[in-house]
Amino acid sequence: MTEIQSLKGFYDRYPEEWVSWKKLIEVVDETAEEFGFRQIDTPNLEKADLYRVKSGDELMDQMYSFEDKGNRKVSLTPEQTPTRARLVQQRKDLKTPIKWYDTSKRWRYENVQKGRDREFFQGDFDIFGIESVEADAEVIAAAARIYEKLDLMDRVRFQLNDRNLLESMLEAHGVENTEEVMQVIDDKEKMSTEEFLEELEETGVESGKAEKIDDLTGISGPISEQIGELREKAPEEAQESVDRMENLSEALESYDVADHCRLDLSIVRGLAYYTGLVFEAFDDEGDLRALFGGGRYDELVSIFGDQEVPAVGFAFGYSTTVETDIYVLSVSENVRDTALEYATTLREKGLSVETDLSRRGFGEQLDYADSINAERVLIVGERDLKNNQVTMKHMDSGKEEEIGKDEVVEHLERERLL
Amino acid sequence: MTEIQSLKGFYDRYPEEWVSWKKLIEVVDETAEEFGFRQIDTPNLEKADLYRVKSGDELMDQMYSFEDKGNRKVSLTPEQTPTRARLVQQRKDLKTPIKWYDTSKRWRYENVQKGRDREFFQGDFDIFGIESVEADAEVIAAAARIYEKLDLMDRVRFQLNDRNLLESMLEAHGVENTEEVMQVIDDKEKMSTEEFLEELEETGVESGKAEKIDDLTGISGPISEQIGELREKAPEEAQESVDRMENLSEALESYDVADHCRLDLSIVRGLAYYTGLVFEAFDDEGDLRALFGGGRYDELVSIFGDQEVPAVGFAFGYSTTVETDIYVLSVSENVRDTALEYATTLREKGLSVETDLSRRGFGEQLDYADSINAERVLIVGERDLKNNQVTMKHMDSGKEEEIGKDEVVEHLERERLL
Repeated sequence: MTEIQSLKGFYDRYPEEWVSWKKLIEVVDETAEEFGFRQIDTPNLEKADLYRVKSGDELMDQMYSFEDKGNRKVSLTPEQTPTRARLVQQRKDLKTPIKWYDTSKRWRYENVQKGRDREFFQGDFDIFGIESVEADAEVIAAAARIYEKLDLMDRVRFQLNDRNLLESMLEAHGVENTEEVMQVIDDKEKMSTEEFLEELEETGVESGKAEKIDDLTGISGPISEQIGELREKAPEEAQESVDRMENLSEALESYDVADHCRLDLSIVRGLAYYTGLVFEAFDDEGDLRALFGGGRYDELVSIFGDQEVPAVGFAFGYSTTVETDIYVLSVSENVRDTALEYATTLREKGLSVETDLSRRGFGEQLDYADSINAERVLIVGERDLKNNQVTMKHMDSGKEEEIGKDEVVEHLERERLL
Repeated sequence: MTEIQSLKGFYDRYPEEWVSWKKLIEVVDETAEEFGFRQIDTPNLEKADLYRVKSGDELMDQMYSFEDKGNRKVSLTPEQTPTRARLVQQRKDLKTPIKWYDTSKRWRYENVQKGRDREFFQGDFDIFGIESVEADAEVIAAAARIYEKLDLMDRVRFQLNDRNLLESMLEAHGVENTEEVMQVIDDKEKMSTEEFLEELEETGVESGKAEKIDDLTGISGPISEQIGELREKAPEEAQESVDRMENLSEALESYDVADHCRLDLSIVRGLAYYTGLVFEAFDDEGDLRALFGGGRYDELVSIFGDQEVPAVGFAFGYSTTVETDIYVLSVSENVRDTALEYATTLREKGLSVETDLSRRGFGEQLDYADSINAERVLIVGERDLKNNQVTMKHMDSGKEEEIGKDEVVEHLERERLL
């Protein structure tokens, strides 16, 4: 008898948990088909060189790479974009627009934390061969449609930017090291104004210019409302990018998603290969958690062959979207049965519920609840039970409240979870 | 510009090809749900030790194994059974029958050939916790139902055996090295009678006994018709196994699949972990190609933990079932456009068609057509075209026929493919 456990950052999804993932995948599939994206299936193992040509060192460090029995350097796919570029290049006969989607697993050797597993599901949507703002708007509309179908659209917001626009504005203000400056802008939201200015000056930007950059990247709000200010502040060379932003705004209106989009000149999206539109989806209620992002990458495909093919797309983040309603935590061994009973009752009420099955400790259970995006944790402890109580912890706010041990269902009904 | 291709034995499935795989996966899913199997999702990478405890050396040699960045020995899943055993052992609260299925990718470093890729899809169906013949019959019925839904049931046949029955009959005839003898029996269909007897004798079996074994393992036919002969030839100790076979036969009648099943005492299925029922599905029209197989493995789960859990299941073979109707082969570069036109026309007629996209040579294209189970290959050559002809090759028989270059559709209509 040998007890072997799964690897850290890899999940066993039993039917009762898998069902909520499967439903989400089906919603994504359905949406893709509605928008005319066609599903593909690609290898989960590629030559490591495929990633070397495009990816930064960070990604290379995070890959599961090894030598196969034929001495080839191979890697488990950390992302699908290089594979898709390869597929586009292999065929000269594909008619544009090429619209592809799929949901499959990816692997990255990262520190395991909330929303970061070593094996994770990702859905990729791409439109190849079309340069227009309509394609930009369409990928955003498809992403939004997923959240509409999930009844989450009232809390999801898209923040978008155009890297060309930002770059030409920086250049017009005499910034020469735009790449470096954009790296700093990428981190702006994590810094105070003072820190931001300091970081900019460290790259060699004069203090007067740094303040202008702070001002520029502070432009944020509904696109149609910001266009005026943008046009005013934009130099001659950037007017074309402002035009494109205005056209995008109109296209987003036509797709009926403009209300959910905000222009934010500080959005950069680290990866250097984006060439125009960049966007991120945020969960307004979950403390502005970034759900996923995407953008336009017109120069990437040509790295992999002789065709030049513009592209725009996004990678849908499953792990940030699938939520467990409640994790039932058993503080000690002798309340495990009670915890299981709570789990069963709440599942019967239609909630997505998980509980401990492998006798983990308190802290470990809480970490696990966090990693599966549990909204609430129902803490079942012996002392509490003696006082006819249990504790409900809200994972977003950290708030805890004690509730009567027989009033859990009523409590959730009051909170409108049931 | 770098041109990097996919790894050998790994496929890029573009939408037009993927659609037939997806449909098949959906049929498998649908069937599973009808029979009450619930879908799970499990890691694609496991600790290598998980396979060491059960698998033979051959499988260990074929695994994609490596050391991860945390110095763990890990392997891409070559099969899912050990993972499922692990999942069953992890939970003490699962109610039996535990009925699980899923379709996902597996990886084996093998010589690439027809129906053997290095990355392949497999569908696993298992019933844990039930020892009865009803469970045995149910997995066979579920497998049969898949082929019924595909309208292929008239050409699929299940050949089954009971390893306990075979073993106890061998023992009753004084065979001591039953494992070794069963290995020889496993290869019987590839040998002449003389070779078979010789091989048996080489393991130490006396020639008289060898002939008896040849006789016994020749028992083959509809189960209900064979039971009489079986009971006659079976010694006292094997009567219980004969009873079970009779009960299974009745259960198969109830599931309405008995007509598609034949008892064949030479079916062993190499892997040593099967303990009772073993079965294989064959394609009667495809030269008796083995499609996939399964069986009962009551002792395997206990290797992975302290619960003893009987189990029966099968692994559905996608690569042996998905067929491409036609592969269009272009003999030289300057007929490529014509080949593409044929492919487009035939796709529009609803056929599953593939053609060359990466300028492979004649032989390579033919190998590829074979590897994707193309039923026919339409060979488009310059000389043929000058004579207003193309060549149609039937992959099963190897037969070739010349047809008018404008009569391909009519020809396929006559052959009732359209």
